[in-house]
Amino acid sequence: METDRIGVGLVGYGYWGPNLARNFYMQKDCSLLAICDLSPGRAELAASNYPSVRVTDNFQELLDDPGIQLVLIATPVSTHYDFTKRALLAGKDVLVEKPLAATVAEAQELVDLSDETGRILFVDHTYLFTGAVKKILELLESNELGDIKYIDSVRINLGLFSNDVNVLFDLAPHDLSLLCCFMKDDPVSVQALGAPVMENDQEAIAYLHLVYPSEIIAHCHVSWLSPVKIRRTIIGGTEKMIVFDDNEITEKVKIYDRGVEFRNNEMSQSDIYKMIVDYRMGDIVSPRLSTREALAEEADYLVECIRTRQRPFTDGRFGLRVVKILEAAQTSLRNGGLSVEIDS
Amino acid sequence: METDRIGVGLVGYGYWGPNLARNFYMQKDCSLLAICDLSPGRAELAASNYPSVRVTDNFQELLDDPGIQLVLIATPVSTHYDFTKRALLAGKDVLVEKPLAATVAEAQELVDLSDETGRILFVDHTYLFTGAVKKILELLESNELGDIKYIDSVRINLGLFSNDVNVLFDLAPHDLSLLCCFMKDDPVSVQALGAPVMENDQEAIAYLHLVYPSEIIAHCHVSWLSPVKIRRTIIGGTEKMIVFDDNEITEKVKIYDRGVEFRNNEMSQSDIYKMIVDYRMGDIVSPRLSTREALAEEADYLVECIRTRQRPFTDGRFGLRVVKILEAAQTSLRNGGLSVEIDS
Amino acid sequence: METDRIGVGLVGYGYWGPNLARNFYMQKDCSLLAICDLSPGRAELAASNYPSVRVTDNFQELLDDPGIQLVLIATPVSTHYDFTKRALLAGKDVLVEKPLAATVAEAQELVDLSDETGRILFVDHTYLFTGAVKKILELLESNELGDIKYIDSVRINLGLFSNDVNVLFDLAPHDLSLLCCFMKDDPVSVQALGAPVMENDQEAIAYLHLVYPSEIIAHCHVSWLSPVKIRRTIIGGTEKMIVFDDNEITEKVKIYDRGVEFRNNEMSQSDIYKMIVDYRMGDIVSPRLSTREALAEEADYLVECIRTRQRPFTDGRFGLRVVKILEAAQTSLRNGGLSVEIDS
Amino acid sequence: METDRIGVGLVGYGYWGPNLARNFYMQKDCSLLAICDLSPGRAELAASNYPSVRVTDNFQELLDDPGIQLVLIATPVSTHYDFTKRALLAGKDVLVEKPLAATVAEAQELVDLSDETGRILFVDHTYLFTGAVKKILELLESNELGDIKYIDSVRINLGLFSNDVNVLFDLAPHDLSLLCCFMKDDPVSVQALGAPVMENDQEAIAYLHLVYPSEIIAHCHVSWLSPVKIRRTIIGGTEKMIVFDDNEITEKVKIYDRGVEFRNNEMSQSDIYKMIVDYRMGDIVSPRLSTREALAEEADYLVECIRTRQRPFTDGRFGLRVVKILEAAQTSLRNGGLSVEIDS
Repeated sequence: METDRIGVGLVGYGYWGPNLARNFYMQKDCSLLAICDLSPGRAELAASNYPSVRVTDNFQELLDDPGIQLVLIATPVSTHYDFTKRALLAGKDVLVEKPLAATVAEAQELVDLSDETGRILFVDHTYLFTGAVKKILELLESNELGDIKYIDSVRINLGLFSNDVNVLFDLAPHDLSLLCCFMKDDPVSVQALGAPVMENDQEAIAYLHLVYPSEIIAHCHVSWLSPVKIRRTIIGGTEKMIVFDDNEITEKVKIYDRGVEFRNNEMSQSDIYKMIVDYRMGDIVSPRLSTREALAEEADYLVECIRTRQRPFTDGRFGLRVVKILEAAQTSLRNGGLSVEIDS
Repeated sequence: METDRIGVGLVGYGYWGPNLARNFYMQKDCSLLAICDLSPGRAELAASNYPSVRVTDNFQELLDDPGIQLVLIATPVSTHYDFTKRALLAGKDVLVEKPLAATVAEAQELVDLSDETGRILFVDHTYLFTGAVKKILELLESNELGDIKYIDSVRINLGLFSNDVNVLFDLAPHDLSLLCCFMKDDPVSVQALGAPVMENDQEAIAYLHLVYPSEIIAHCHVSWLSPVKIRRTIIGGTEKMIVFDDNEITEKVKIYDRGVEFRNNEMSQSDIYKMIVDYRMGDIVSPRLSTREALAEEADYLVECIRTRQRPFTDGRFGLRVVKILEAAQTSLRNGGLSVEIDS
Repeated sequence: METDRIGVGLVGYGYWGPNLARNFYMQKDCSLLAICDLSPGRAELAASNYPSVRVTDNFQELLDDPGIQLVLIATPVSTHYDFTKRALLAGKDVLVEKPLAATVAEAQELVDLSDETGRILFVDHTYLFTGAVKKILELLESNELGDIKYIDSVRINLGLFSNDVNVLFDLAPHDLSLLCCFMKDDPVSVQALGAPVMENDQEAIAYLHLVYPSEIIAHCHVSWLSPVKIRRTIIGGTEKMIVFDDNEITEKVKIYDRGVEFRNNEMSQSDIYKMIVDYRMGDIVSPRLSTREALAEEADYLVECIRTRQRPFTDGRFGLRVVKILEAAQTSLRNGGLSVEIDS
Repeated sequence: METDRIGVGLVGYGYWGPNLARNFYMQKDCSLLAICDLSPGRAELAASNYPSVRVTDNFQELLDDPGIQLVLIATPVSTHYDFTKRALLAGKDVLVEKPLAATVAEAQELVDLSDETGRILFVDHTYLFTGAVKKILELLESNELGDIKYIDSVRINLGLFSNDVNVLFDLAPHDLSLLCCFMKDDPVSVQALGAPVMENDQEAIAYLHLVYPSEIIAHCHVSWLSPVKIRRTIIGGTEKMIVFDDNEITEKVKIYDRGVEFRNNEMSQSDIYKMIVDYRMGDIVSPRLSTREALAEEADYLVECIRTRQRPFTDGRFGLRVVKILEAAQTSLRNGGLSVEIDS
């Protein structure tokens, strides 16, 4: 019946897992029943944080528990495929951390498996549930920006050196999920440049250059080696432009009443000089945004999808689009910036 | 005799010319004697601003005036070669706007001509005379940063669409002059990606990726199409990192007590999780900077070079290094990001 | 035995209560056993958030439960006295929201009762447990600032219009707790100016001017009517100055290597002009701060106080010092800024 | 005839004088003919900066020169009265630095003298000619803000310790000129609190509290002892609020779509909690501003007033309003914050 809570099990209580635990514990239609982590230290922390929740180091226990309908997977990327596959085959709905999987082949198989089993495969692109991104999507849908000409995204900080993946797989999924949301088409090709910088083999800095069918260009800079944290996406349209700065506390989104076509051949000489000094050409509006935690919003949406058996917009297919770009970018990165086509 | 003022003539009273005029008018050892501009409107403005200075539309007048020892050239890039050549051949010392010339061949010829005539050829890389850049040079020389691993520079705003050059030639000379100052070596190759974005043929957005012999990587993003003005250079060293943000009023330079080698294999699991949240690893110092106008500083230095006949550090050879990178980047840009070698 | 968890009951699940609930639920040595709220809506939310915790609308239940050793009180200010008194008399240790009570008389009585019962009375001045405040206290103790000359604090935003207290009692306790920590002495007098601004009788804007025995002056501006959120405290010393800006994400504390005695009578005329333009006189250091949630830090400290029966530094006496200033300020506010002495 | 340039003489080439010199030298309808400074060092600098301008240490020379129609006075406040009086009596139009004079009596006499002689007395409240202030005046005139409820202004930095005046006379004229522009009425009373802080007798920190007939309150904080430079004015209206932050490069003026009457008695409990977290209640607009130098704008306006013999809005009467508040504030400051009435 409607008032029954959805039983939830979580695997992975590392960096992101505690956020999932807290939000699904608090979600009014869910019951967090079990947490699984292989590390004794993390398991102990989970037990201390949630005395009323069962803690285990055996993932199979979650699959065997008929009370658990939803499995949350917050483990290293290389293990996403295996945990997700097992959960889907066990008849569970699944939320899995981004990126969906480490390769296109794995991601495709999970998408197919989700179709075959009729289970929900939800990729946790949390970023898309923030008030800022929702507002930007509204603005794009209302066509206020005119034609999009370029998107430039920077996501850099002093981050964790993951042993699991490089900076591309760690940070770029945020930007690529934005691009997959903002753009109707997928990019046709990608060029990626970067460097390991450190002695280890994992790239810590990467620059991605994506080309779209409509000649829009998109560029992402991701880095684990920046002393300052920058999280900024600029969307340039012919009518208006948006700057999304996630480090701002209240004015995360700014809409600039200025497009790219301000060139005027009849402009007089003196106007040109004036324009140089006066580089801001119109008002700036910073819209009110929802400040609700993105993960709480996402949890509610996932519950609704589970209740109504509707396909979430961040489903396996969406996650696969992101993995396709990542894999192509990786190939380019390892080949000195070679232009690599993306299969769509 | 020493107390005689240096006679100065300026050609080009457009965007930058008025700044040169003001600083050399005020410079205590210079006399601004003549201003030349072909546009009647600009000439009229010059005459109104400097009633005591002769205004002309004939550049030859400046060359013929024996009282003029120094010619300042602030005209479109495509004309630098011609004006500079004529001034050197007329026996004048020359300050010319950056970039030195539109091609390597032209720049090389001007360097040679400067050598032959014994006249000073000073390229106006004003940026290098700011208090911020001088402080960064000090820090680099004292080796406080350890080994430099990367430099990332962003210089974007809603700018003038020049009819003369693309965004690469308009904005990148700032960043490349920093790189030529900061790095002992020149880059071995460059890859440049970009797009015209507008209907005209000039690129308005460009991304440059430079590779150095020491495996340092440098990246520059220049754009005329950004609604926000960003002028930020990050220098990542193994011991410390610098962020130079030219939009900051007082804290333009910040030194982060954190290098790139923070990885510790013996780090315990819980430390790793701690490090993720706590991404700032040490103190930040923002050193006191000189706030004197860079152009005034530069004018004093040029006067000293003229008096003592010493070769300025921003001489023709320095300007040529910048033009070599620009030309190679242009070739790469027009060939889809092809890696182009730079002749050093 | 040592490993037994401390039983915790919370009254008030309004604005701040959920934060207390979350932190004491997660605290490894505590068990959150019961939440009490009179509002059915809030009680329902508490029950949904913490399915394993008992929810009640009867405060007496908490007092009657022998398993509850610690009572957390997060109710309106006017009720602090009554709830705290009952809890102390029932033999419970108490954490009560700031300010400790609505009047000096009430606060004094609670202090006395805490002494008589031997129960811990902990006032929840959370702010003092932030990494920023701890670092500032370290700096003050090391005497790096020289003699403190002034403290200026601004705490304004678009806030809730409390029906319970005015802006003085709502916001100033933060600033006054800082002052009580930073200064060895208490102020000798206070003048407060303000205005209701709205039709209701509660002041929404207030300015406090405190005079200390050592002639230090302190000023606080609190407001519910500012469109921007500002939380900034400046501490001016003779050697250095500190700016604590709580809106900054990473650089909350900045130490300016500049004291107030920069006046130099032998200074030449030209130095004076130079100083005007160049208003920053030394380096700025932004120290690394702990980023742990203040309330988690505070919860650990409270547990330690309970275990060791030590008097917390934010005990009833500390809370009373704050209430004494508040009451005097209130008197001044209602008498047009009259200077009101503070009994110490 | 119309095309004749206005002859201009300047007295005082200290901190502000060079800005006046530069702007009036460049102003197309003015000729800067003479600069007077008693200090040999400053006179020498003036001569070096403006080789074509006569430099003297004798103010009388300016008065005796029939070619000089306009005298600019940028000398210490205590000398404003004497220099201005002599210039008016010599038949010159006068621009004098703010504040107009050191006392109400002096200021009143200058106003009367200006009336008697028919000469223009222009007080250099430069701030009022910035693009930001002009935009705010437009917004106030269009009544977009609803009823103004409060104005809060902060103007603090590490400043020059003037031997001439205290911080009140040095910095508050900016804020008071804003208030005199923004408000139709003058304040009825003022209370000022402050402290010398340093060994010298001049106050270096002051807080002003102004009460208006309409019960609007205004507050100004001025200081020479702040390590950070803050220049911010908040205007709270019943419909909208404005924040004017002069430290911002491009977004100096922000209009918050939020008034003070957001209190709603029918608001449900949960809405109240929502409002607390979500303190921004509407969009923010940052209008495009003119970026022309205020002093250039002011010089043009003064020329127009001289040509048409119209009374400038920043005339002696305006300057007198500011001095009246300053004098009353000074009295309050020296009497421990006594409420002092302002004669209007």
